[in-house]
Amino acid sequence: MTDDKKSGTPKDTHYAKLRRAHRDQKAGGPPKHRPRPATPAGDAPPDGLVRLYGLHTVRAALDNPKRKIRKMLVTRNALERLGIADLAALPFPAELVEPRDIDKVTGSEAVHQGVMIDALPLKPKPLSALGETSLVVVLDQVTDPHNVGAILRSAVAFGAGALITAERHSPTESGVLAKSASGALEHIDHIEVRNLAEALGELHEAGFQTVGLDSGGPAELEKTFAAPRIALVLGAEGKGLRQKTRETVTALARLDMPGAIRSLNVSNAAAVALYAARKFLAVR
Amino acid sequence: MTDDKKSGTPKDTHYAKLRRAHRDQKAGGPPKHRPRPATPAGDAPPDGLVRLYGLHTVRAALDNPKRKIRKMLVTRNALERLGIADLAALPFPAELVEPRDIDKVTGSEAVHQGVMIDALPLKPKPLSALGETSLVVVLDQVTDPHNVGAILRSAVAFGAGALITAERHSPTESGVLAKSASGALEHIDHIEVRNLAEALGELHEAGFQTVGLDSGGPAELEKTFAAPRIALVLGAEGKGLRQKTRETVTALARLDMPGAIRSLNVSNAAAVALYAARKFLAVR
Repeated sequence: MTDDKKSGTPKDTHYAKLRRAHRDQKAGGPPKHRPRPATPAGDAPPDGLVRLYGLHTVRAALDNPKRKIRKMLVTRNALERLGIADLAALPFPAELVEPRDIDKVTGSEAVHQGVMIDALPLKPKPLSALGETSLVVVLDQVTDPHNVGAILRSAVAFGAGALITAERHSPTESGVLAKSASGALEHIDHIEVRNLAEALGELHEAGFQTVGLDSGGPAELEKTFAAPRIALVLGAEGKGLRQKTRETVTALARLDMPGAIRSLNVSNAAAVALYAARKFLAVR
Repeated sequence: MTDDKKSGTPKDTHYAKLRRAHRDQKAGGPPKHRPRPATPAGDAPPDGLVRLYGLHTVRAALDNPKRKIRKMLVTRNALERLGIADLAALPFPAELVEPRDIDKVTGSEAVHQGVMIDALPLKPKPLSALGETSLVVVLDQVTDPHNVGAILRSAVAFGAGALITAERHSPTESGVLAKSASGALEHIDHIEVRNLAEALGELHEAGFQTVGLDSGGPAELEKTFAAPRIALVLGAEGKGLRQKTRETVTALARLDMPGAIRSLNVSNAAAVALYAARKFLAVR
């Protein structure tokens, strides 16, 4: 949503509301003149739980011993595609349902592919938990769930060991994020830090070169890599990296784009940077 | 939406509908138990027109002499950000409105940033219109508007000269696609062909190496490039390239991914492939 939007809450009578609601219902669409909530349909998961759906996402959650699942709804078809032979043998309540029963819970826009679970979110880790990995991704206020999900997927594909974000601007685990991540959520550590600049300092001490992607960077990304451990730092679209982040990273680097458009979608930029970093690290 | 979904249309009385519609309206959400249309809110543009919104998208449309605009709604704030001094001097009807007036037309989920236009779609071109470009993207049944939009943006950024699709499985120009493309729609030729395999043959005759991205490809992408003109061929997520396409391309190539997940979001794969192809072509 943009800052250009305002919430219109016209005062009108009960019957006007009722008539309008009926008209909207009949037209097959929601009211057109008031902002809809971020999750336009479906119920919220119970307090403290996240709702995950989709075959890849749920399969990865089932395979992750750290993922505590509280409930599953699944169709016969999805059960088969997940390779689950005995529903009753699962270590959590699971119910065989019709697709529309899942629609009701997830909202009909969620591509649930016949399965959803309610589960505890994975607990973010502190920076001290970072292992021997040579490649991490640091997000500076990137929170859009589609983008963060796609970044997680690329990060796992190219073998990054962690996603690092600041507590105050952390992406929230959600069904949309998990679906975009296509299972990647279960394969990478999410590290949350109090202060991103301090965390970059700690990464430097641990031998990381922190490289901030910036369209005005002095050198091309591939020519910038110079250490056996790389942290790729990405800012939100439009805003880019915050000033403090720009001042703290080892280097700012650009992706050369000869065309009429000089910026990529942030998940696309992340994919290219991860690919280039992985190639650099493999050659060393 | 998935093949697991069915439309539930319970028969009930007028008054039950009315009560339920009112309850849903009160809860701030649409009915939860019936599939919603693909465009959940907003009006369809007039026949034969597309509705474009967002600052980058509209700015690029205004700058494209081939884009015929029929109508604009714009807020005072957006007008300023677009650098339009005199609304009346525009060569099409333009109206100064409040953000909520645009919400009503685009639907409240569209990030319109205070501006929308109704315009004629850009006419796809035949393959014979392909110019001197050394890099093109071919989509084999990729139609998701978010992905196609992001691919267009990366294609323009990395200097690709055309997006080639088959008529029967062509992405449709839409507000969502255009917004994801962030203006790129106006900067690249969309070429539509009857038959994708025949088109690949014509590209071969024109000196293109056609490289299909495939996770089971025999060689890594960068090591596959071997001609001064490259056509990158991408299939839809999940399905990948069709058999006929796989048989027709010059080469199949993979992106090496060492991680637990072996596939990228299609727009991320396209961005990496474009980056690698652009680097190869620059070195030659």
